[in-house]
Amino acid sequence: MNTITAEIITIGDEILFGQITDTNTQWIGAELSAIGVRTIRKSSVGDHKSEILRILAEAEQRADIVIITGGLGPTKDDITKTTLCEYFGTSLAIHEEALVFVTEFFRKRGREITDINKGQAALPLNATYIPNTRGTAPGMWFQERNTIFVSLPGVPHEMIGLMTDEIIPRLKQSFELPVIYHKMIKTIGIGESFLAERIEAWEDALPSHIKLAYLPSMSMVKLRLTATGTNVDVLEKEVQEQVIKVLPLISPYVFGYDSDEFEDVVAELLKKSGQSLSAAESCTGGYLSHLITKIPGCSAYFEGGVVSYSNEAKMHTLGVQEQTLLAHGAVSEETIREMAEGVRKRFQTTFGLATSGIAGPDGGTAEKPVGTVWIALATPQQTITKKLTLGGTREQNIHQSAISLLNVLRKVLLNIPLD
Amino acid sequence: MNTITAEIITIGDEILFGQITDTNTQWIGAELSAIGVRTIRKSSVGDHKSEILRILAEAEQRADIVIITGGLGPTKDDITKTTLCEYFGTSLAIHEEALVFVTEFFRKRGREITDINKGQAALPLNATYIPNTRGTAPGMWFQERNTIFVSLPGVPHEMIGLMTDEIIPRLKQSFELPVIYHKMIKTIGIGESFLAERIEAWEDALPSHIKLAYLPSMSMVKLRLTATGTNVDVLEKEVQEQVIKVLPLISPYVFGYDSDEFEDVVAELLKKSGQSLSAAESCTGGYLSHLITKIPGCSAYFEGGVVSYSNEAKMHTLGVQEQTLLAHGAVSEETIREMAEGVRKRFQTTFGLATSGIAGPDGGTAEKPVGTVWIALATPQQTITKKLTLGGTREQNIHQSAISLLNVLRKVLLNIPLD
Repeated sequence: MNTITAEIITIGDEILFGQITDTNTQWIGAELSAIGVRTIRKSSVGDHKSEILRILAEAEQRADIVIITGGLGPTKDDITKTTLCEYFGTSLAIHEEALVFVTEFFRKRGREITDINKGQAALPLNATYIPNTRGTAPGMWFQERNTIFVSLPGVPHEMIGLMTDEIIPRLKQSFELPVIYHKMIKTIGIGESFLAERIEAWEDALPSHIKLAYLPSMSMVKLRLTATGTNVDVLEKEVQEQVIKVLPLISPYVFGYDSDEFEDVVAELLKKSGQSLSAAESCTGGYLSHLITKIPGCSAYFEGGVVSYSNEAKMHTLGVQEQTLLAHGAVSEETIREMAEGVRKRFQTTFGLATSGIAGPDGGTAEKPVGTVWIALATPQQTITKKLTLGGTREQNIHQSAISLLNVLRKVLLNIPLD
Repeated sequence: MNTITAEIITIGDEILFGQITDTNTQWIGAELSAIGVRTIRKSSVGDHKSEILRILAEAEQRADIVIITGGLGPTKDDITKTTLCEYFGTSLAIHEEALVFVTEFFRKRGREITDINKGQAALPLNATYIPNTRGTAPGMWFQERNTIFVSLPGVPHEMIGLMTDEIIPRLKQSFELPVIYHKMIKTIGIGESFLAERIEAWEDALPSHIKLAYLPSMSMVKLRLTATGTNVDVLEKEVQEQVIKVLPLISPYVFGYDSDEFEDVVAELLKKSGQSLSAAESCTGGYLSHLITKIPGCSAYFEGGVVSYSNEAKMHTLGVQEQTLLAHGAVSEETIREMAEGVRKRFQTTFGLATSGIAGPDGGTAEKPVGTVWIALATPQQTITKKLTLGGTREQNIHQSAISLLNVLRKVLLNIPLD
């Protein structure tokens, strides 16, 4: 079976000039992928007839499906319909059904339809009318030569409605589509290249119909497996077998799958454990508590925390000994230990988290350069301390410190040995 | 003078399949527009050599500048560099300067460089090496035939850093660009439509070569004035005159200009004032402290804070009276007042900030629905309290609460009357 390919074309100067965010093409790409249509290109062009004509011709050469959004408004700068007429060698005519709908649309809102708005009901003669219940610009479907062209309004909720209710079902009828199965393995605490080395042999041995992609983001790497075939159950089973094969190589780093978010995973573990938590933050300055408290329902396990930015705060609200600060400084294993144990005691929680470091850009010394961060987790049995050496911007170092500490907590909750 | 045109090409299956949001092309389009370069097309193609080669050839025909992002990672699915070699008929070779940098990059992080990472230092022989201080994938600049090709990593903060520090300045040198002068007026605490009403007459009277754009973001609206002409000093003077005209209409809402960030502006005011600050957070759960502590040098005025999530924490670490909590609840004017005054006293600071509310999605009642938030600022003279009624997601409500409170602090520091 041939792969069915699509191109997505967005029309509008405001997108090219970065004045508005285009959320449509990401959504369309995901929907097409979900039904087994492979998007081979996305393009944005301005409101210029010549550029629109050119990209239509290019896309028709490459793709089975061309989905066009934007440029269907009632004003002068919306030229998609007239350009489509020129491209297909046809002309505009009022579509009766569309006219009734548009007239009704305005009547319902207590407004008389204007001539400009009547124009919304004019469609190219070769267009199949696709009713848009959410706005005045109809969708259009063209089956010309060997390509299907779809023209949709750029307003996201109108586009999404038309795609969901009309276009996706029609595409499923029009093509014999392959079945695609996606699986995402989410890792933390290991860099892309180190991960790649660990799984190189497994990756090289993947069957040709299962593709692997690395999707790195700050302090995490997602592994995306994409299987293409004809039977979703078979594909799911094949992918699951690959996951089982690779897992032993990377299991300590895997925190979840598919739509799992790291903070949610840690929150779930905490909820299940029935344990409670408090945080003492110096260099993370509240960000760690924010990652915990942005999760709904966190009050079930999070008692609170202290942002002990000054040494006074460390002493008076956490009970860090003055001599500890004098002898070892705020960024030291001795201080972080007292911070974690102090906050755990003060808030009477199972776990006490603590961070202290030099986030930068200033404040570094030869002995303790910017990026030196101590993190600690106090438990009823012991206090785990870890030194991080980070090399990012201030905000990245703050983020990395908080995530690394939550990862220590995750490992403790799962009895994963700490490295 | 000819218009200088650009095309932006994004490489990566994950963008075509809608698995990640492409924020890069919007940013690049806006930056190019800001220096008078007209983006004529944006395209995304997959990690497939043939498709990348095809779009490179097409773009070279159409544009003076081709900016390519993505596909520069160290792993097998990143093929941009090898494809560029094939396109330019050259080959990869280790670039000594790049190798030194990458090795150092890992050494700084206490890691040995792997062979895979050494590959990051291999560049096409015809590439000009553009150092990337934020990551391991260098930028590349190619001047071939009549087109400039730029290849950048897809990681947004790396791409933005390279464009800002290296590429934009080089493009300005390489082309005779029209003179464009931008001025951004940044407002907070007033909605787009209300702002538009206040300045309607002024906006209608703007000369035709000065354009106004509203750029709303959460809880802020930026007004961007763009003047086009031939002499930058003239343009700057004309724009400045317009700013002076509009300012009286909106001055209480204006917190800064151009690259000013709200948190930096408040930080500057605090530093100048010589006053100190502490924070007691319930619904913002550490986010407010994070906004304060993400600014370098904040230890000059920020003593610390308490994330008093539980009532116990409110009583024991802030001295909120039990009967206050029993009589009025945690989300009340009485409690927020005691929180602000309590944290100010405990940390012995000039100002004490406090937040308490229902961020959602759960926890709302008929009397106190989700989005009900109390904020307070305790000063040596008085305690200012304010009730917010927010309608966003949990994270939006957290953000809005923190920003609104910092805006109260800004107004107090500037003696702007509170509404």
